[in-house]
Amino acid sequence: MKFNCDMGESFGSWVKGNDEAVMPFVDMANIACGMHASDPSTMARTVALACEHGVSIGAHPGYPDLLGFGRREFALEGAQLEACVLYQIGALDGICRAQGRRVEYVKPHGALYNKMMRDESTLDSLITAVRRYDAGLPLVVLAAGASANAALRARAARQGVELWFEAFADRAYGADGRLVPRTQPGAVHTDAERVIRQVREIAEQGQVSTLEGTRIALKADTLCLHGDNEQLLAAVGRIRAALS
Amino acid sequence: MKFNCDMGESFGSWVKGNDEAVMPFVDMANIACGMHASDPSTMARTVALACEHGVSIGAHPGYPDLLGFGRREFALEGAQLEACVLYQIGALDGICRAQGRRVEYVKPHGALYNKMMRDESTLDSLITAVRRYDAGLPLVVLAAGASANAALRARAARQGVELWFEAFADRAYGADGRLVPRTQPGAVHTDAERVIRQVREIAEQGQVSTLEGTRIALKADTLCLHGDNEQLLAAVGRIRAALS
Amino acid sequence: MKFNCDMGESFGSWVKGNDEAVMPFVDMANIACGMHASDPSTMARTVALACEHGVSIGAHPGYPDLLGFGRREFALEGAQLEACVLYQIGALDGICRAQGRRVEYVKPHGALYNKMMRDESTLDSLITAVRRYDAGLPLVVLAAGASANAALRARAARQGVELWFEAFADRAYGADGRLVPRTQPGAVHTDAERVIRQVREIAEQGQVSTLEGTRIALKADTLCLHGDNEQLLAAVGRIRAALS
Amino acid sequence: MKFNCDMGESFGSWVKGNDEAVMPFVDMANIACGMHASDPSTMARTVALACEHGVSIGAHPGYPDLLGFGRREFALEGAQLEACVLYQIGALDGICRAQGRRVEYVKPHGALYNKMMRDESTLDSLITAVRRYDAGLPLVVLAAGASANAALRARAARQGVELWFEAFADRAYGADGRLVPRTQPGAVHTDAERVIRQVREIAEQGQVSTLEGTRIALKADTLCLHGDNEQLLAAVGRIRAALS
Repeated sequence: MKFNCDMGESFGSWVKGNDEAVMPFVDMANIACGMHASDPSTMARTVALACEHGVSIGAHPGYPDLLGFGRREFALEGAQLEACVLYQIGALDGICRAQGRRVEYVKPHGALYNKMMRDESTLDSLITAVRRYDAGLPLVVLAAGASANAALRARAARQGVELWFEAFADRAYGADGRLVPRTQPGAVHTDAERVIRQVREIAEQGQVSTLEGTRIALKADTLCLHGDNEQLLAAVGRIRAALS
Repeated sequence: MKFNCDMGESFGSWVKGNDEAVMPFVDMANIACGMHASDPSTMARTVALACEHGVSIGAHPGYPDLLGFGRREFALEGAQLEACVLYQIGALDGICRAQGRRVEYVKPHGALYNKMMRDESTLDSLITAVRRYDAGLPLVVLAAGASANAALRARAARQGVELWFEAFADRAYGADGRLVPRTQPGAVHTDAERVIRQVREIAEQGQVSTLEGTRIALKADTLCLHGDNEQLLAAVGRIRAALS
Repeated sequence: MKFNCDMGESFGSWVKGNDEAVMPFVDMANIACGMHASDPSTMARTVALACEHGVSIGAHPGYPDLLGFGRREFALEGAQLEACVLYQIGALDGICRAQGRRVEYVKPHGALYNKMMRDESTLDSLITAVRRYDAGLPLVVLAAGASANAALRARAARQGVELWFEAFADRAYGADGRLVPRTQPGAVHTDAERVIRQVREIAEQGQVSTLEGTRIALKADTLCLHGDNEQLLAAVGRIRAALS
Repeated sequence: MKFNCDMGESFGSWVKGNDEAVMPFVDMANIACGMHASDPSTMARTVALACEHGVSIGAHPGYPDLLGFGRREFALEGAQLEACVLYQIGALDGICRAQGRRVEYVKPHGALYNKMMRDESTLDSLITAVRRYDAGLPLVVLAAGASANAALRARAARQGVELWFEAFADRAYGADGRLVPRTQPGAVHTDAERVIRQVREIAEQGQVSTLEGTRIALKADTLCLHGDNEQLLAAVGRIRAALS
């Protein structure tokens, strides 16, 4: 079970996140590509940090919307979306090549990620962009139960693209298997014990306890940590220990 | 003697140039990478057009200055400039890979090109960016006489990067070997016979007649055409015939 | 019956429209404010051109989306939309003040205009922005029949803002009173006689013949011309003559 | 002696500065206008905060360079610079008008401020922009000794524009009257006693002790505080007390 985290989300002189503190704790760095956050110099620094800690590098493309940090709906579809994603993967890969690395996977950001999970056309555009760039790159999507995962996996397999399913260590799930919106109380677990329990459920049982108290199936390949959840980061060592 | 031309300089709904008309006449398309002009969809269309006509694709990185079209001085140097250029080469290469192509050379744009020719630190940053991306990519620079070319070639060779030297078919040269600024009368040749004479001088004799009437040495590997010089385009067939 | 036209839609070195040719024929120039098109220098030139021809100046705010030219849906609502519109009106007014002029009305652009006509919350935000900037500025909206116009007029009057209703000289109307989408055949009238007939219907009878051949009520204060419809521009003199 | 501080320098979701904490301590808020920092919503929030604390509002225009935070040299001069500054003043004034306020003065930001102090053409463009917007708005420039101030004042007076001279409470001065560059040791005073001493020298004696230990004349109307100097903010109360 690998831990992934969004990284490199600063922009020019504006700092976001605490990449130096978080990088040592993760296995996979989802690095912003300059359209919803970051810039070439920030990307170069973030790639260097990932190199230093032996962390896998993923492209984290988003909608071209700095002001909205890629969290707003954005009217971008089909060939235009594909080109926008190819641009971002390539740009980060250019920065990586200069440091002897390569982009190793792709995880969409924010509103693009959410759209991908509810709109098949957007999902297909992302799969197509990944396939056309390098069909060997996995695409990270939201994990659900085994059958829902299988349906998505089959869809991507038609284009020869592998999916990695991610669950969230610190986000509450609803009975429908979706993340509880951040606007609802209880949406984010801040108690380390609660997080550890959720991680163990997911990693060891392929299940998660929902906010309502029921248990649902959740089969995941990787766990997303949020770099801005300090309690979570403090507990990463214990989470790893609990899993091993 | 290959003909290169700047291409893909539209931005969103704003059109610049006439790529469909020009592409059939050139050997090398210098394609803008989204920082001084273009956007992912325009880049995808331009790469497709180059594919259709079997034209070689070069990255045409510029300063990140859409409003100034990359023609203004821009305070970007050293590691920041390298990252900015790597980003652009990679982004275009991402678009190319999706169409089964690759970036085959790099030619800087506008103010960045001019700075490169008069500032060794900028030249070195560009050579470094190319080397770190792919040392097999040639960098296009302004041709001069044999000894000036040799000095530049040696500088690039230290980093293992090859230079291609370009001359201009339709721009007047001064006695100092520099292009006569566009603000001066006579700076651009619009007469086809004049252009053909200049091209033959360069291609066959390694010389060019200056605006002052003297002849200077000019050793070039490629000739730059300007897509907005209609007389020039109309004469390309005759130029090719004259050269063969 | 005044003629209005979108103006100042160039961006940096990219030219759009033909403002010099169009300005002499219009009464009202809807000037882009730098968010979906234009830039400070283009705005200054466009304002100067309007001054030269004694044309009334309106702010033409749009979504902050240069790449999409403000024609894409954009997730901007409420206080954020208000601030964005206030910013644009103020910016143009700043350019106007420097030339002894002032913004005299406000007409939203593209996707924002369309959203305003189908979403009351967006309409209210625009009315609020205008009221808070200067309640004496009229807001231009799409004309319909007398009762639909009256409902909108009442809504704006609650905030003390006046509406001006605009019809289109060269766009076909559907039986529902909406413009026929440009993607449909017959959506744009290119025949001067057809345009003149439509303008006379609107101006003299408060009616318009729909694409389906029926006639519907259409009460308008101003007619929008499209600067890129050359047949239309050529006919403006005849249109004016026909109206007087 | 009024205290001014740069405010509203966040951008979208990226936070910079601590405006809520600083606003209560200052008399004048220099508010960024969306070109080197800020956005319409941030501007609206910052203006509201200034209203709440009864703080005077100044436009803080900068070069259009978000990525460089307006701290890089930027090739913008003459009419283009004027238009860019008019745009920014007007945009902020639009936000202000909506809250019953107006821009009350203009203080350029970063590299534009520095260029203004060493390049007369840039200074003249700024004076012209202010005059053309509203000749009643003072322009804030760097204070020096009485005669240097007088020369600048005369230059602005030719266009009917008033200058306000600012000194820095926490920056060390060199024997030449210029600020010691931040890259040099001792450039920023972090000791409250040292700051209070400097403020008293400036306010009471029209002099300042330089880093070299000499004293030079420095006649100032306003003191600039840096919102990121926590020791300075903590001392503002004592500074005020010391002055009264």
